[in-house]
Amino acid sequence: MNSEIKIEKIKPDNFDDFLNLVEKLAEYEKLAPPDVKAKERLKKDAFSGDPKYEAYLAKLNEKYVAYLIFFMNYSSFLALPVLYIEDIFVLEKYRKKGIGQLLFNFCVRKAEEKNCGRIEWHVLDWNKLGINFYEKNKAVHLSNWEYYRLDKNRFKDFL
Amino acid sequence: MNSEIKIEKIKPDNFDDFLNLVEKLAEYEKLAPPDVKAKERLKKDAFSGDPKYEAYLAKLNEKYVAYLIFFMNYSSFLALPVLYIEDIFVLEKYRKKGIGQLLFNFCVRKAEEKNCGRIEWHVLDWNKLGINFYEKNKAVHLSNWEYYRLDKNRFKDFL
Repeated sequence: MNSEIKIEKIKPDNFDDFLNLVEKLAEYEKLAPPDVKAKERLKKDAFSGDPKYEAYLAKLNEKYVAYLIFFMNYSSFLALPVLYIEDIFVLEKYRKKGIGQLLFNFCVRKAEEKNCGRIEWHVLDWNKLGINFYEKNKAVHLSNWEYYRLDKNRFKDFL
Repeated sequence: MNSEIKIEKIKPDNFDDFLNLVEKLAEYEKLAPPDVKAKERLKKDAFSGDPKYEAYLAKLNEKYVAYLIFFMNYSSFLALPVLYIEDIFVLEKYRKKGIGQLLFNFCVRKAEEKNCGRIEWHVLDWNKLGINFYEKNKAVHLSNWEYYRLDKNRFKDFL
């Protein structure tokens, strides 16, 4: 099965397929998908001289069925880069075929190449499929860290 | 009080002061501090042509009493950079003087300058001082996201 799957870096001529998959993940996660302007920024940020993220598509029999976005974080105590998985998503009807695993293994290869000290990511607490997948891969659940955010619309309160 | 505090970017001639503060945070968080090689990497990664993080020190009456490290993440759905606070730390005897707030406000200014969609960070669940500080600042606690990690020593299992 895995031998039929190809991993392809995003490029201008598969970018619309990539955007379709990003929308499908937003739908799955019940989060707001990128709007028209955000899609334009995603393109600019992918192909600029200093790209803000890396993204890859998984192609099965000429159909794009999954995608992956990651970028580099940094650990001050390890003093090493950390590969952060922003999104990893497989279309519903193509799950349970090892495609997610293939993309996860691909992340590990990239982390190795980039001399990362670790890989990190978040998963929504109701996403049992995702959580089972990471538990199966014996990832460490960092349950002792609380995750916080300040949104742009609050910035003005601090300026 | 705040008027006496200066925020200074790290540079070669205050780097040892910076490293001392990083060690103090590791001690406070009961985590392993950077070893000698890690300290060398921290220096290289701060001052390379493509720095892996930004760091600042807070100076009160000629003493470095606090520090801040951040770097840029990215949100695929917002399609905007996210300022990620890796560390924000004030030496114990200099707390409750507004120095942490000054550094946090400084992060917000940087996030605004860099056109970020949000600021994010993690705090250890027993760090009540930290949590109270973020709650006081009305940051959003993302309690529905589970945080996972795969350490470098596990990479070989996936290659």
